[in-house]
Amino acid sequence: MQNIPFDRALVDKIIAKNNIKSVGAASIREVKKIIDDVEAATSEKFVRMEMGVPGLPAVSIGVEAEIEALKNGCAAIYPDIYGTKELKQETARFVKNFLDVQVPEDCCVPTVGSMQGSFAAFMTIARLDGKKNKILFVDPGFPVQKQQCRILGIETEHFDVYDYRGDKLGAKLEEYLSKGDVAALIYSSPNNPAWFSFNEQELQTIGETANKYDVIVIEDLAYFGMDFRKDYSKPGVPPFQPTVAKWAKKYLLMISGSKAFSYAGQRIAVTIMSPELFEFKTDYMKNYFSQDTFGRALIFGSLYALTSGTAFSPQYALTAIFKACNDGTYNFVEPLKDYGQKAHQMKKALVENGFKIVYDKDLDVDIADGFYFTFSYPGFSGEELLSELVYYGISAISLTICRSKRTEGVRACVSLVPHEMIKPFEERLKIFHKDHPIK
Amino acid sequence: MQNIPFDRALVDKIIAKNNIKSVGAASIREVKKIIDDVEAATSEKFVRMEMGVPGLPAVSIGVEAEIEALKNGCAAIYPDIYGTKELKQETARFVKNFLDVQVPEDCCVPTVGSMQGSFAAFMTIARLDGKKNKILFVDPGFPVQKQQCRILGIETEHFDVYDYRGDKLGAKLEEYLSKGDVAALIYSSPNNPAWFSFNEQELQTIGETANKYDVIVIEDLAYFGMDFRKDYSKPGVPPFQPTVAKWAKKYLLMISGSKAFSYAGQRIAVTIMSPELFEFKTDYMKNYFSQDTFGRALIFGSLYALTSGTAFSPQYALTAIFKACNDGTYNFVEPLKDYGQKAHQMKKALVENGFKIVYDKDLDVDIADGFYFTFSYPGFSGEELLSELVYYGISAISLTICRSKRTEGVRACVSLVPHEMIKPFEERLKIFHKDHPIK
Repeated sequence: MQNIPFDRALVDKIIAKNNIKSVGAASIREVKKIIDDVEAATSEKFVRMEMGVPGLPAVSIGVEAEIEALKNGCAAIYPDIYGTKELKQETARFVKNFLDVQVPEDCCVPTVGSMQGSFAAFMTIARLDGKKNKILFVDPGFPVQKQQCRILGIETEHFDVYDYRGDKLGAKLEEYLSKGDVAALIYSSPNNPAWFSFNEQELQTIGETANKYDVIVIEDLAYFGMDFRKDYSKPGVPPFQPTVAKWAKKYLLMISGSKAFSYAGQRIAVTIMSPELFEFKTDYMKNYFSQDTFGRALIFGSLYALTSGTAFSPQYALTAIFKACNDGTYNFVEPLKDYGQKAHQMKKALVENGFKIVYDKDLDVDIADGFYFTFSYPGFSGEELLSELVYYGISAISLTICRSKRTEGVRACVSLVPHEMIKPFEERLKIFHKDHPIK
Repeated sequence: MQNIPFDRALVDKIIAKNNIKSVGAASIREVKKIIDDVEAATSEKFVRMEMGVPGLPAVSIGVEAEIEALKNGCAAIYPDIYGTKELKQETARFVKNFLDVQVPEDCCVPTVGSMQGSFAAFMTIARLDGKKNKILFVDPGFPVQKQQCRILGIETEHFDVYDYRGDKLGAKLEEYLSKGDVAALIYSSPNNPAWFSFNEQELQTIGETANKYDVIVIEDLAYFGMDFRKDYSKPGVPPFQPTVAKWAKKYLLMISGSKAFSYAGQRIAVTIMSPELFEFKTDYMKNYFSQDTFGRALIFGSLYALTSGTAFSPQYALTAIFKACNDGTYNFVEPLKDYGQKAHQMKKALVENGFKIVYDKDLDVDIADGFYFTFSYPGFSGEELLSELVYYGISAISLTICRSKRTEGVRACVSLVPHEMIKPFEERLKIFHKDHPIK
C-alpha cells in the first residue's frame, strides 16, 4: 500500500471544488462524485460501501424466463393489475415453503419493486380511517419509506429499537399504539441498516400488540433468507424465515427480487396480505376508492392508479425463480453467502483496529454477518468518521439518515467490495488506527 | 349470419347469474365476464370494442434491444432514477424530430408507463402551492387520471370541451383559470375517448391562457402520431404532431410506448418537462420535498419514492425504438394505419345503419379515423344502447365514465376487432337497425 492516507490538500481541493461542506453530511450522490474525482486524481480505488445494491449477477433462471416471455410476445399486452396467475401461485407456494405461512394466491400481488409495495401500502392504509392514519417506524430503517410518507402527507412516529429489544419491546410498542392513531407499523428484518433480526419472541410481541390495537403490520423482507446463521434455503423444511405472519392478524409482507435474487434492475417484488387484511373494509375509504375491501382497493385502486400493474417480463422472471426455489432445484441462499463471508472478514478487521460494531447483538447472540453492518470509532461522530475515512479511501453512509439514535455510527454495505479489496481495507484501517490513537 | 340477435332469455339468464343489473352500467371487468359467458353459450364471437389495448405485436426493434440488454446483465443493477443517458438523448431527439420542440435531455425522464407519468405529475404539482393545487380536466378523458387525483386527495375541476372548440375555448378556460386555484390542466390529443385533435389555434389558446395564469399544461400524447389525416412519421420533416409546447411556458408532455409502439406490456413511457417548469421552485414544496426545483422533485422525490425508477430492459427497448424513428430507419406510423382503416369501415357501417358519430368534427373538418370513435343511436341513452347491443354480439363502454356530457354516446376501440369481423359487424348493425326503426 502506498498513498494512504491521500494527500489532504489534494482531497480538500476536490471537496471544495464540488462545493461540499462536509463529506459526512453529503448525499450519496455527492459522495459518489467526490470518490470518482479522488480516484481519478490518486489512481487509487476506494473501498466503496455506501451503496446498498446487489453485487452478484441476476439469477439466470429469471433472465432466461424473461427473454422467453419477450420472444413469446408479452411486450404488447397489458398485464393484469393483480398479476399473472402463475406468479400468484408460485408466490403463495414460496410463502408456504419458506415462511411456513398459508395464504390464498389472491392475496399475493406483484409490485414494481418493494418501493411500490410500501408506497401503495402507505397510501391505501392512510385512507382507511381519518383519525387512525399514522405510520409507526420501528427504526432504524430505509430512509425512502419515510420520504414516501412525507410526499403523501402522512404523519409518522419513530423510535430506535436499539434500547428496546426482547422483553422491553412490548411496552415500547404499547406507548405508541395505545394512543389509537397509528394505522400501521413497519420494520425490516434482517434490518437495513443495522442487520439485526427480530427473533420469534419479538415478532410474537409485535403481532400480538398490533392485534390488540387493530394495527396493520408491514414486514419488509427485503433481505429474505439472508440471516446466514440459520439455513432458510430448503423448501418446506424448518427452520423457516421468522415472520410476524405467525401472530399478526392484519399483516402485509413485502418480498423483493432485488437483493435475494439480485434482480434490482427489473423492479420486481411481491406484496402478500393476510386474508383478514384483504377483506378489511371501512366507510371512510369510500372517499378515496370505489373498491369495497382493503385488498381490492390496494390492487384495483392504488396499484392500478400508480402504474397500471407491473411490467410483464419481470413477472415471468420472478415466477421462474420462485418455482425453482419451491421445487428445490435452485438454492437461492447459496450464492448470497458470499456477502456474509465478506462481512465476517471486514468486521474482524475493523474490531482489530479499534473500531466498534454499533448494532452488535440480537439480544444475547451476535448479529449475523450479511449485507450490511454498522461501525463507529471512539471519539468520532458518524459524520466526522465518514469525513475522515475519505482520506483513507473508505466510504460508507451515516446512520442518522436512517433515523438511528446512534449518531456515532455509519452503515457499510459489503456488496460492492471485491474480495481482493479486503486486504487493502485491512491495511487502510491499520494506518487509520495508528493515525488516530484511542485515548 | 345466424343466431343474431341472441336468444334474449339465454342472455338475460347469464346477466342475472352474474348479478349485474345493467350491462350498460357494468364495469369493463363485469362486461368481459358476461361476454365470455355469452360466447361460450352461443358459440358466436362478439365484436369486442370495450378495451383500449394495442392489437398489434410490439415493435420488434424494442423486443430485440430488451433481450440483448438482459443478456448483458442489466437485471442486476439498479437503474438510475433519471433514466439512462441514451434514452434521455433519444427522447430529446424524438421530441425535436417529431414535435419540432427543443428540450435539454435532462428534462426527459422515463416512467413506468404514462400512468406513472401523470400520477407523479399530479402528486408533485399539487405540492407546489397550498392555495393553487386543483387540476382542471379538459374532458372527456381517461377515467383513471381522475382516480389518481381522488386517491391523492387532490381537488379537480372538469368541463366537456364538446361545446367549446375553436374560438369558444379561450373564454371557457378563462372561466376556470381566472379563479387562481388551478395548478395544472390536462387533456389528451388525439383524445381518448372521442378521438378529436386540438388544432394549432386551440393549442395556442391553451398555452397562452395557461401562461397568463401561470398554470402548468399536461399534454397526454398517448396516441402520438395517430391522427392519420396528416403524415407525422418523417423525422425532422413537417408536418409535426401539434403540441402545446410551442406556446406554453410550463408544460409536461407524456409520450407512451403502449399504443404508438404497441409496448403496453412492459410499462414504459417518457415524461418531458419544459426547462422553465423543470427549474420552477416554491417555498411551499419544501414541506414535501428535499429537492429545490420542480424537475428534481419530480425525479428524485416522486419517481424515486414511487418505484425507484423504471425497469432497465424496457428503457433499452424504448431507446432502440426512438433511435430507429429518429434515424428514419423505422416508420412507426405505418403499422398503426391499420387502426384507421378499420375505424373508417366501421364508422361507415354505423352511419349507414342509423347510428351517429357523437364527437364527429374537429371544428369544420371530420375527425380522424383512428384508435377510438364514439357513436350513438337515436332514442337510446349510452347505457341503454350498450345493454341492447349485447344481444347483437357487440360490446363497447359508456362515455359517461369518461366524464363526457354526451350521455347518449358510447366509446368503441377498433384494436381488438379482426378484419374478418367487420363484415359480421355490418350485418349485426343491419339487423339492429331493422329491429329498432328510428321514429
